[in-house]
Amino acid sequence: MEKISKEELLRKSEIPGKNAIKMHKFYRGKVQMIPRCQIRDLNDFSVWYSPGVAAPSKEIFKDNRKVYDYTSKWNTIAIVSDGSRVLGLGDIGPEAALPVMEGKSILFKYLGGVDAVPLCIGKSNCCEADEIIEFVKMIQPTYGGINLEDIEKPKCFKVLDNLRGDPEVKIPVWHDDQQGTACVTLAGIINSLRIVGKKKNDIQIVFNGIGASNFGTYRILKCDGFNVKHFVFVDTKGILYKGREDLDCPNNYKCEVVEESNPDQLQGDCGVALEGADVLISSTVPGPNIIKKEWISKMADDAIVFVLANPIPEIFPWDAHEAGARIVATGRSDFPNQVNNSLCFPGIFRGTLDVYAKNITDEMCVAASYALANIVEEIEGCLVDSCILPNMEYKEVFIREAVATGLKAIDQVVARIKLSEEELRDSALNLINTSQNQFKMLMKAGYIPKFTDYDK
Amino acid sequence: MEKISKEELLRKSEIPGKNAIKMHKFYRGKVQMIPRCQIRDLNDFSVWYSPGVAAPSKEIFKDNRKVYDYTSKWNTIAIVSDGSRVLGLGDIGPEAALPVMEGKSILFKYLGGVDAVPLCIGKSNCCEADEIIEFVKMIQPTYGGINLEDIEKPKCFKVLDNLRGDPEVKIPVWHDDQQGTACVTLAGIINSLRIVGKKKNDIQIVFNGIGASNFGTYRILKCDGFNVKHFVFVDTKGILYKGREDLDCPNNYKCEVVEESNPDQLQGDCGVALEGADVLISSTVPGPNIIKKEWISKMADDAIVFVLANPIPEIFPWDAHEAGARIVATGRSDFPNQVNNSLCFPGIFRGTLDVYAKNITDEMCVAASYALANIVEEIEGCLVDSCILPNMEYKEVFIREAVATGLKAIDQVVARIKLSEEELRDSALNLINTSQNQFKMLMKAGYIPKFTDYDK
Repeated sequence: MEKISKEELLRKSEIPGKNAIKMHKFYRGKVQMIPRCQIRDLNDFSVWYSPGVAAPSKEIFKDNRKVYDYTSKWNTIAIVSDGSRVLGLGDIGPEAALPVMEGKSILFKYLGGVDAVPLCIGKSNCCEADEIIEFVKMIQPTYGGINLEDIEKPKCFKVLDNLRGDPEVKIPVWHDDQQGTACVTLAGIINSLRIVGKKKNDIQIVFNGIGASNFGTYRILKCDGFNVKHFVFVDTKGILYKGREDLDCPNNYKCEVVEESNPDQLQGDCGVALEGADVLISSTVPGPNIIKKEWISKMADDAIVFVLANPIPEIFPWDAHEAGARIVATGRSDFPNQVNNSLCFPGIFRGTLDVYAKNITDEMCVAASYALANIVEEIEGCLVDSCILPNMEYKEVFIREAVATGLKAIDQVVARIKLSEEELRDSALNLINTSQNQFKMLMKAGYIPKFTDYDK
Repeated sequence: MEKISKEELLRKSEIPGKNAIKMHKFYRGKVQMIPRCQIRDLNDFSVWYSPGVAAPSKEIFKDNRKVYDYTSKWNTIAIVSDGSRVLGLGDIGPEAALPVMEGKSILFKYLGGVDAVPLCIGKSNCCEADEIIEFVKMIQPTYGGINLEDIEKPKCFKVLDNLRGDPEVKIPVWHDDQQGTACVTLAGIINSLRIVGKKKNDIQIVFNGIGASNFGTYRILKCDGFNVKHFVFVDTKGILYKGREDLDCPNNYKCEVVEESNPDQLQGDCGVALEGADVLISSTVPGPNIIKKEWISKMADDAIVFVLANPIPEIFPWDAHEAGARIVATGRSDFPNQVNNSLCFPGIFRGTLDVYAKNITDEMCVAASYALANIVEEIEGCLVDSCILPNMEYKEVFIREAVATGLKAIDQVVARIKLSEEELRDSALNLINTSQNQFKMLMKAGYIPKFTDYDK
């Protein structure tokens, strides 16, 4: 792996940003709403609107479940954000968050065939957790699911947990920063363990940083049967242990992990935690040199290092390898082993929507992780140190995840309808292909104009 | 005009409903979200999403106005309904209202090039006026405008008036059941008066029914300079006059019209009000025989009768003509002179969005009405008793309305940007043509499958 300086990496990272300004201005936004039904001439509106539309409306009034048959609800989700924690930019507000949610929308459509409507919310003094919760409950008639995005901690935990646990909420609610990253990280860990020949029950894992993504990853690993007693958590003040005074338990969300992790009551910095550890999962602040080479060198043999801060990982991969790490994953697409949450959410929502599921359980998420992990050995040259995850060009990823997610939903009785494995596969394949082919045709025909004035 | 029985009319009205059930089930909804920007391959997502998207987000954070440059906000509105007064169906709730809002969405896109997102809202005990008001304030970062729809009276008046008057609300809010119908009705009245050679200052108008549409029409006519002293209002209890005890003034919204209308303090039923009147505008309950022939016969010469109840007007047009009415307009597309609010909202929103307007003033609405009315004399065989309004096949309608609306917005300083008449025209023409041509190509290529199994 070729070494490259922090300055050079930052410069490279700025190129997409320069093009982004030009291209966002050129296209004036990234999403549009179009019909999915035929309009041969204006007479068809007598069926789609007054007077004909009264008939399906009356049917739904008699039996609310028919809203899945007669409207786009079955395939439509809202991407809800208050803009309080956007990418690495912090609390920039709902307007500034909108380009991100529109980007997410086109990822959903292109990779998963999902109609995803950006919905950035806010008003003066908005938004407390309770306001976001009430808001989501208010919009649920329209949507088949909700993707929460870029909401700051600890608010995001309260919002997600309350909505998932509320019997009034009849549609799945997902927070991608928690669950999406967790889903991909779990798949990466599964394959890393396969490569180095270790077992999930035996290994010591250090979580550095306890934000949305590491908290989500902890929950998903726990759901998959990883041994929580072998977890150690580290935040900016060092290792978490019972009785650490600043934690103010039980009011802090971190208390959930303190109770069950670190049974030896280790104290100290991340370096202390890493002594003899098998896996590091770090999601903190841009590096390099947040994680030190000497810390990595004290990890167990065949150490697995996930350093996920963007745009610069907490330690450069070459430094981690020099210090003895065997497998290194980052958030960057130009390094090997990118942990990219776009590998998960389109497939998970595809499968969830296809069975009209009421919830996305942690078990559905784990099932998708295994579908994602299992595909890697089918890819030539993969399931090796430098290829633990596929890239998103590989369409089969999303189809397998959709099937696994849908089957698990049926199995757990959170699905409203039952489909066979083959039906789930056909549905996902058809919807994803249609979405991509339809779009390619619009581009080819010039309805999506070409942009050519790039910076290189 | 051929007479047809109530039974036969009702049977005809049921055909679109039968097809609607089949076709809604076939298409599984009417709307979808797609990209409006190029995606040549997955590398483009590094511009549309992380890391590139951070750059436009940062720019918007520095200057919120740039949200109109870098996102789809400039062309995107929400169609908000709580489903409390849907078509003629009453309070059927948000799920059952969704097919209607999706129908509205495709009308917006097809006729006005506007991206309109259905947003049906509700939860237990929802929605009080204040809840809808707070909801709209919460979603305004995402949208360039709000179309309220099918919200019951008197709640709808409070919601609209509060939102239009709130300095925190920086985007236009429109209630189509009030303002859209009013806009088309005014255009129809303008042309009727031209045909019969009467002046707006002189005429006596009877409003039968004081729901959303007639209340909206009253306000718009007043804004255009009609003489309110010549208005008489009638509700289910008869003519409104000062001191009518059941009105409970000033708490009732109807008190606004009592104060300034009916200076002679007429009392009695609609028949009394119509004696000598020039114009009837009736928006009540399905007929026929709600308006009696003998009432019409006592109107002034060249009487103008708008009977807008659906699916059957308050009096059959042939009966009204026999009783002496000269011009009769209804809500039905199979009778002459359809008052169809689809003639207004797509053009008004097109012009409003094209100048990033903060509001849709009554004056903008009146300007659109005149644009709509003025086009009729250009249509062969029109501006005669049986052709006071164009039909919506005539694309030029929406373009002229957009230009008139945009220019008035600039004139009244509610526009955020200034465009010339030519620029407004080009923008509307281009966006409407693109929307229709893009969609026709998708149909032709089979991405919108054909439905063929119709009832006749």
